[in-house]
Amino acid sequence: MPLKLNDKDPDFEAVFTSLLAQKRDEDKNVDAIAADILADVRARGDAALLDYTRKFDRLEIAEASGLRLTKAEKTEAIRSCDNETLEALKQAAGRIEDYHRRQMPADALYQDDAGVTLGYRWTAIENIGLYVPGGRATYPSSVLMNAIPAKVAGASRLVMVVPTPDGVINPMVLAAADLCGVDEIYRIGGAQAVGALAYGTATIAPVDKIVGPGNAYVASAKKQVFGTVGIDMIAGPSEILVVADGQNDPAWIAADLLSQAEHDPVAQSILITDDAAFAGNVEAAVANHLSTLARAEIAAASWRDYGAIIVVKDLARAPALVDRIAPEHLELCVDDPESLAAEIRHAGAIFLGRYSPEAIGDYVAGPNHVLPTSRTARFSSGLSTLDFVKRTSLMKLDAASLRRIGPAAIALAESEGLGAHALSVSIRLN
Amino acid sequence: MPLKLNDKDPDFEAVFTSLLAQKRDEDKNVDAIAADILADVRARGDAALLDYTRKFDRLEIAEASGLRLTKAEKTEAIRSCDNETLEALKQAAGRIEDYHRRQMPADALYQDDAGVTLGYRWTAIENIGLYVPGGRATYPSSVLMNAIPAKVAGASRLVMVVPTPDGVINPMVLAAADLCGVDEIYRIGGAQAVGALAYGTATIAPVDKIVGPGNAYVASAKKQVFGTVGIDMIAGPSEILVVADGQNDPAWIAADLLSQAEHDPVAQSILITDDAAFAGNVEAAVANHLSTLARAEIAAASWRDYGAIIVVKDLARAPALVDRIAPEHLELCVDDPESLAAEIRHAGAIFLGRYSPEAIGDYVAGPNHVLPTSRTARFSSGLSTLDFVKRTSLMKLDAASLRRIGPAAIALAESEGLGAHALSVSIRLN
Repeated sequence: MPLKLNDKDPDFEAVFTSLLAQKRDEDKNVDAIAADILADVRARGDAALLDYTRKFDRLEIAEASGLRLTKAEKTEAIRSCDNETLEALKQAAGRIEDYHRRQMPADALYQDDAGVTLGYRWTAIENIGLYVPGGRATYPSSVLMNAIPAKVAGASRLVMVVPTPDGVINPMVLAAADLCGVDEIYRIGGAQAVGALAYGTATIAPVDKIVGPGNAYVASAKKQVFGTVGIDMIAGPSEILVVADGQNDPAWIAADLLSQAEHDPVAQSILITDDAAFAGNVEAAVANHLSTLARAEIAAASWRDYGAIIVVKDLARAPALVDRIAPEHLELCVDDPESLAAEIRHAGAIFLGRYSPEAIGDYVAGPNHVLPTSRTARFSSGLSTLDFVKRTSLMKLDAASLRRIGPAAIALAESEGLGAHALSVSIRLN
Repeated sequence: MPLKLNDKDPDFEAVFTSLLAQKRDEDKNVDAIAADILADVRARGDAALLDYTRKFDRLEIAEASGLRLTKAEKTEAIRSCDNETLEALKQAAGRIEDYHRRQMPADALYQDDAGVTLGYRWTAIENIGLYVPGGRATYPSSVLMNAIPAKVAGASRLVMVVPTPDGVINPMVLAAADLCGVDEIYRIGGAQAVGALAYGTATIAPVDKIVGPGNAYVASAKKQVFGTVGIDMIAGPSEILVVADGQNDPAWIAADLLSQAEHDPVAQSILITDDAAFAGNVEAAVANHLSTLARAEIAAASWRDYGAIIVVKDLARAPALVDRIAPEHLELCVDDPESLAAEIRHAGAIFLGRYSPEAIGDYVAGPNHVLPTSRTARFSSGLSTLDFVKRTSLMKLDAASLRRIGPAAIALAESEGLGAHALSVSIRLN
C-alpha cells in the first residue's frame, strides 16, 4: 500500500517531511571496492580489464584487442534488429537532435564603455566516454540521450563502454550507437570501465568526460575520477510526481505512476490531487494494471514501498509541496497547466496537460531523459548540449583602456598583498 | 631554475610529457579526516562547529548564536577600510556584474512540425553557500567573483562562511560581502563549515549549492557532500601560460609570470616563445623583479620548482602545445592574438595582446577569475552565471500530436520491455 497523506491531517507536515527524508539509494560501502579497482586499472591497464571482465561478466577474452567490438560484430547485430523498432529509434534520434541543437550556446564579443573588449567562446569537449549499463537496464534510448548532445556539441571522439555479461549484448544498443556515430565500443563495464576511460590503457585512449548511468560501483568510480575527467551528475532511482485534478481518467494516471515504478523497486511515484475519490480510483486502477503488466513485480514493490498519494484541499497548495519534493519528472494533468507550472521552481522536466505522459519524454519528445533525481533539481539540470561544451573567457585591452581600469586593479592587488599582480599592471602604465 | 625546453631537442616530447604529468597538488590523505568531521557536524550540529572552531581556529565561542557575525561587527569592520580600496572594489563589482548579466541564459518555447510544444526555462538556485578562505589566502576579490554571479542569477539567500583564525578577519572581505548583498556570515571554516552548509545545523539553515575555494580539507569535504548539494569545480593551484614573441618588453612578461608564481609555491608559470634571446632576457627580468617583491620567497620557489621556458622554432607550433597544457590563464602577447587564439581550443581564459596582463582579469576586467586548473579546461569552464541557475525541460502534447509521435514511443518502450511506459501512451491513443 502506498503512503496516504491528507494536508488537513494534523500530522501532515511531519509525515511529508519524513517522505522527503526517505533514503532510497542503497547505502553499501562501495567506495573502497571501486577505489581498489580504479587503482588496479591505473596500474595494470588492459590486464586488469581482462581480469575484471572474466570475474564480473564471466567473459573470457584472450587478448586486449578483443575488448573492442569489431565492425562485423556491430553489423551483424544491427541486421538482427526489428525494422519497426529501428524506424522508431531513428524518429526519436531526429527529434532529440533537433531539440539539442537549439541548446547550443552562442559566443559573445563586445567592447564596453572603458574600451575593453570582452566576451567568451564555446568549444566542444573532444573525447567523450559513454557508459551504457548491461543486463536488465540496458536501454538503447539512453544511448541516444547521452550520445546525441555530445555529437551536437561537436565531440570529435565518442567512446562507448558496455558490459556484456556472459557475452550477451542488446543489438538495439549497438544500433543506437551506430545511429549516433559512436566511434569505439568496448565490452567492459563497472568501475574498471570508468578507470579505463579516465586513465586510459594501452588499448583505450583516455577521454575528457564520462557520462551515462550505472550501478553503485560505477557511480562511486565516476565520483572518484572527477577532476581527472569531467563527469555528469550522479543519478539516483527514478521518480515521478503527478499533480492531477479529478477530471482525469484514473487509468491514465495509474499508468503514468507505474511507468516510473516499473523501472526499479526503489523508484518512486507520487500523486497529488485535490479529489479524494479520484485518488481512490487511481489506486484501484494501479491494482488493475498490475494484473497485466510484465514488470508487475518490480512496479508493485516500488508502489508499495515508496509510492504516495497526497490529497490536498486545493491544487493551489500543490506548488509548495512540489518544490519541496523537487521531482525528476512532474506531470501537471489539469486544464491550465501553464499557470500551475509558473508557480513551481524545482523540477527536472514538466509534462504539461493531460496528453503528455512522462514516457513520451523518455523516448521521442526531444528533451533529454537524463534528469536530476533525489531532490537535486534544486540545484542541477538535465543532461544537455551544455554538458559537452566548455567556455573560454576572452579579454583584450589596449594602452588607453588599461589606463582606465588598471589603477583599480593595482589598488586591489596591493590591498591583497600581491605585489607582482600590481606590478604587471603598473609596469605597463609607466 | 625553471625547466628549459627547446622543441628542436631530441628529448623534447619526453620532457614536455613529463611536464604535463607533473603533480603539484599535495597528495595528503585528507579524505578520511574530512569524512569524520562531516559526520560529526551532521550528528552534533552547532556543538561540533564550536569544538572545531576552538581546535582549528583557536577561537572560543560560548554559544552557537555567536557563530554569526553581527551587523555591528560588519559595520565597524567596513568603517576601518581604506576609501581608495573600497572605491576600487566598487568599480570591480560593477564591471563583474555587467559581464555576468550578459551570461544569463534565455528561456525557449516553440512548437515543432509534429505540433509538440517544447522548450525549457531557467530558474535560480535559491540558497547559495559561499566558502571564503581565512588567513593568508583571504581575498575580497574572490568574494566578488563568487557572490556576484549568484546574485545576478537571482539567488534568494547567500550564506558566507569564513574562518577567523585567532579571531582575525580581513575587513575588506566583509566590505565585499556587504557590496554583494551577502545575507548571513558565519565565522567557521574547514570541512566543518562545508558540513554545516550542506546538512544545516540549528543555527545555520542548509543551502542548495556550495561554491568557493578552500584548502585540501575543504575540497575533499565539498566532493563528499556533492549530491546532497551542488558544488563548483575543485580548484587546484593557479597557473599561467604566456605565449610571447621577441617584441615584448621582457620585464612586462616577467611580471606576468611572477603574478601567478606569487600565489603559491606550487603555482606554475610557463613561457612559450620563438626567441631564445628574449627567453633569456625574461629569465633575467624575473630575477630582477624578485629582488624587490614582497612575496619573493613564494614566487621564487614556484618559479624554481614548477616554472618552465619553452623555446619553439615558430609560434605556429604553440597552439598544439597550449592545448596539451590546457592552461587556466593564457596570455597571447603577439601582434595578432586573435589569429593565434582561433587555433587554440583549451584554455580557461585568454588574455589577448600586449596590454592585457592576467592580473587585470583577477580584479576588474569583468570575467570570472575562478577558472579551471590542472588541465581541466579540457572539459570545464570558469565560474559563471550558469553555475547558479538550473533548467527545467518543458513539453506539451495534445491528442493530435501524441498520435503523431506516440507510436514510436510505444515501439521503443516495448523493445525495452517497459510495458507501463507503452501503456501510458497507448491508453491515451485508444
